[in-house]
Parts: sequence; structure tokens; C-alpha cells
Amino acid sequence: MIHNGIEYGDMQLISEAYFLLKHLKKMDNEAIATVFEHWNEGRLHSYLMEISAQVLRHRDKDGDYLIDKILDTAGQKGTGKWSVINAMELGMPLGLIASAVFERSLSSDKNLRVEAAERLAKDRKIDTTTDLSLVDDIEQALYASKLVSYAQGFAVLQKASDNFSWNLDLASIARMWRAGCIIRSAFLNDISDAYQASEKPKHLLFAPKFAAETAQDLKGWKAVVIKALQAELPVPALSSALNYYLSLTTANLPANMIQAQRDFFGAHTFERNDMPRGEFFHEDWTGKGGNTHSGSYNV
Amino acid sequence: MIHNGIEYGDMQLISEAYFLLKHLKKMDNEAIATVFEHWNEGRLHSYLMEISAQVLRHRDKDGDYLIDKILDTAGQKGTGKWSVINAMELGMPLGLIASAVFERSLSSDKNLRVEAAERLAKDRKIDTTTDLSLVDDIEQALYASKLVSYAQGFAVLQKASDNFSWNLDLASIARMWRAGCIIRSAFLNDISDAYQASEKPKHLLFAPKFAAETAQDLKGWKAVVIKALQAELPVPALSSALNYYLSLTTANLPANMIQAQRDFFGAHTFERNDMPRGEFFHEDWTGKGGNTHSGSYNV
Repeated sequence: MIHNGIEYGDMQLISEAYFLLKHLKKMDNEAIATVFEHWNEGRLHSYLMEISAQVLRHRDKDGDYLIDKILDTAGQKGTGKWSVINAMELGMPLGLIASAVFERSLSSDKNLRVEAAERLAKDRKIDTTTDLSLVDDIEQALYASKLVSYAQGFAVLQKASDNFSWNLDLASIARMWRAGCIIRSAFLNDISDAYQASEKPKHLLFAPKFAAETAQDLKGWKAVVIKALQAELPVPALSSALNYYLSLTTANLPANMIQAQRDFFGAHTFERNDMPRGEFFHEDWTGKGGNTHSGSYNV
Repeated sequence: MIHNGIEYGDMQLISEAYFLLKHLKKMDNEAIATVFEHWNEGRLHSYLMEISAQVLRHRDKDGDYLIDKILDTAGQKGTGKWSVINAMELGMPLGLIASAVFERSLSSDKNLRVEAAERLAKDRKIDTTTDLSLVDDIEQALYASKLVSYAQGFAVLQKASDNFSWNLDLASIARMWRAGCIIRSAFLNDISDAYQASEKPKHLLFAPKFAAETAQDLKGWKAVVIKALQAELPVPALSSALNYYLSLTTANLPANMIQAQRDFFGAHTFERNDMPRGEFFHEDWTGKGGNTHSGSYNV
């Protein structure tokens, strides 16, 4: 199931790369196919990248590019949502796959989007860019986001393994997925290697190779998401991955505000950063004693 | 349950606004409280905004601001994840609340984040901004994102009502939530009014008042997300909302690529934009007939 969820993420990421090359760089299908084939010779080498290039070059019996005639309403069979539901049950962040599932749902309501575009975005014009580095930046954004997606997926597997004493061998799972699966890719070798290292990484992004790559890719990754949003082109998966990476690498998040709110309205208590972990405190926020209740508590 | 999910979203959004005022504008707790109180007199008037200002001014028995001592590890009781799981089961995008749930999960793994910050982001410096309009921009981003969150939540209620023939009165639900609930706010009056209009909006963002507001707020909303990501400050809920808004208002998403991939590897078929809806086509992508199968199909 996690395999299929990752597949949802990979497909959404490739579709966003296609979208940006098409609208920000004004590339045609052949040019985008050439970019994808080039990427497929590098670290993004994968079955899905390979078939995406073939899809872009494919002509129908009228000699037209078929991709331009396919309706933008993505179906789903359920495995994406099941992987997200299971991650939620385990309390694990699987945001990239969730963004891919939700984007498929939204895509399927074509009539709503056509009406929304007409009502709310009639005057939108996309500013194309002549920025020569953008194609490389998109490669970096795609790679780094894919890394986040696999890191999230493998973290869910690790958590399930710990919770249910499955004793999963993550290196073997990565190797197994190289053969015949739709997400087969060069990249799975690197993941397998990472989990076979003498010091097994606590988080996939801590593996030396991946840590070095994300550090290098961050600049292009940020640039792509920023340019896309500036041009009002949706990039839900690339954005979700970037926000996860930034949250993961932020030692102090604003969750102290959330804990304060929860303690204020529901006496849910909080931990303190000047006391040992595992000790919980409640504050009399209003000076009126315990009378801080409100309508709903279970948040 | 949707009420509590929306509450998760509101709390995450307020925490992101706090985070940006603190780190991008270098405001202290009292200054942020003053901003929140000011916002609370306008269209963001709500119980959660009010108590967040009180939280920021609250001092502990040592005379220190308690908010600075609360650990940034947000707990949860489950209602947020249940609302996301139900939206997934209904095939509805509830991305903002999902981002809030996942961010709480990630916040709770404090040790991992501290180690990630040390390993991966040791040299990060936040560029503060002296941009005078940023505070207003954050108000716009917060309001527009909150609007997206409620629009998503009410769309789930509408879908459930249709699917299960509940005949829910959304205007009444909005009115009911004004009284005593933690998400009580001025804004719920506007939602109730929108659903009581003679022409009931197909989507909450189509209501004239909200359509006009999001059009006005888009510039500031984009500016805030872009500045935050540029400074490497995570804004998962603000980003998720912006990407939803952009996807909703995009008549042609890149989901045609996803449908092409699905048909290529699994013969899942696609609809065409030059044929009536509801007719499904399969292409022989490789010229080798039906032999386009791969390892997994159910995606």
C-alpha cells in the first residue's frame, strides 16, 4: 500500500514538472519529452519518467498529440487514500501523498474548476519566464520532493514495523520495489544502500548522500515553488514537500501556540522547554481558576 | 467532527501567522498580541484570535512570557484525523486540515527535528524583512486561507449530505457553530448569509462577498507564502490553502499526464476533452497492443 501511495506522489510530481515546463517555459510536448528523457539518464531514472516521455511524444490516429486531448480528471482506485489513512492512524506525516490524493479529487471535479476559473480567475495571465536555469531548478525540485515522499513513506513503514513488531527490513523492501514495480528507479538502489549502511539512518534524509543532495537542491527547489506561486500555477506536491523539509529542519516550530490554545480552552496541558520531557503543566490563563472551558474539548 | 477539523486548521493558521510575525518581522510577544487584538476587531474576529492574544501577553509566576517556555510539540485527540479520513472516503479534498494534522504529528517528534536542524540546517539564517506591508499581507493570507479551510469543510458536509440523503442545512450549521464553539467567529455569520442567499453558492468561494475578498487578498497571500519559503520558514497550511485555491481556479490541470500514465501502465482508460464526458478510451501507447501491463494496477 505504501508502494502505491508513493506511486501517487511520483505521478503528481511528474505532472507538476510537466505543468511548469509547459506554462512557465512555454515548451511544447516534444521539448518536454526531451527534458524528461535527459532527466531519465540521471538520478531521476525511473519507469514513470520513461513512460511520461513516451506519453508526450505519442500521436493519435489523426496525427495529434494525444496528451493534449486527454481530460484532466484523474481517477483513483483507493490505494493512495488507504496509505494516507494508515499514516494518520499511526500519527505519521504523509503529506506529499495526501496532496497527490486530494489533487486527484479536485481534478475530477472538472465542471467546478471550469466555473471557478471563469468566476474567480478570468483575468489571470501567466508570466512566462526566460530564466535559463529554470529547467535545472525543476529537476532539483522534482528530485528533492521525491526524496521527501520516499522518506515519509519509509518512515511510515518503520513506524508500523515498530508498533506491530514486524521487524521489516527496509533495505530489502527498497530492493524488492526495483523489480517490476511501477515506481522502479535507480533511486531505490540508493535507498537500499542507505539502509544497509553500518549506521542505519534515523530518517532517510539523514543518509549522507541524501543530506548532501537536499542541501544542494534547496535553492532551486525554493525558486521553482516561488516562481510557480508567483505565476499562480498550483504546485501542491512540490509545496507540500518543501514545507515538510522546512518543518523537519526547524528545531522550534510554532506548535507552542497550539499547545497554549489547547490548554487555554480545554486544559489539555503542555510540556515546557525548561523542564524534562514527559512532565505536563496546566496554566490558569485567565486568573479565574479552572473556568477555561468552551464548547468542544477533543482537539 | 468537521467542526473540530476546522478548529485544527484555524489553530495551525494562527500559529503560522505568529511564527511569521516573530521571525520575519522580529516582533516580540506584546507586539504580536497587539496585532492579533487589532485583527480581532476586523473580519478575523474570533474566539481563537482573542485567546491567542491573551496567551501571548500571559506571564508565569516568574514574570516571564509563558508562551516562550511551552514546548513546541502539539498533541491531538483524534478528531482532526477523523475528519480527514472521512473526507478521503468521500473523495473530497480537505488539504488544509490534513496539513494541520500532519504538522502536529511532525511537531511532536521534537528530538527528530532538533537533530534534523543540526544535521541539515546548521547554517540557516532567517532574513528578516522591514517590509511595512507584511503585517497586512499576513492578515490577508490568514483570512483567505481560513476561507479555503471553511469552504473545504462545508464542501465535505455538502457531499456527505448528498451521499447519505441527510438534507443538511448548511446555513443552520454555520449559525449553530457561532454559539459556544471554539471556532465561533464573526465570519460564521457571513457563511450563514452566503448559504441563505436566494442563489445558494455551488462552492463557498463563489459567494459574491468571498469571491471579492479572495480576489483582493490574493496578492498579499502570495507575497506571504513566497517570503516565508524564501526565508525557509515552514507555512504548511498557508501554502496548502493557496495551492488549493490555485488548483480550484485552474480550468486545465496537469492531471491529463496522470491519466495518460495510468492508461499506459494499467489500461485504466481516460476521458477526452474533444468527446462527451463519460466516454472512456484506452490507447495502445507502445504499438505492441495490449501488452502495457506492469507490476501493480490499483492506482
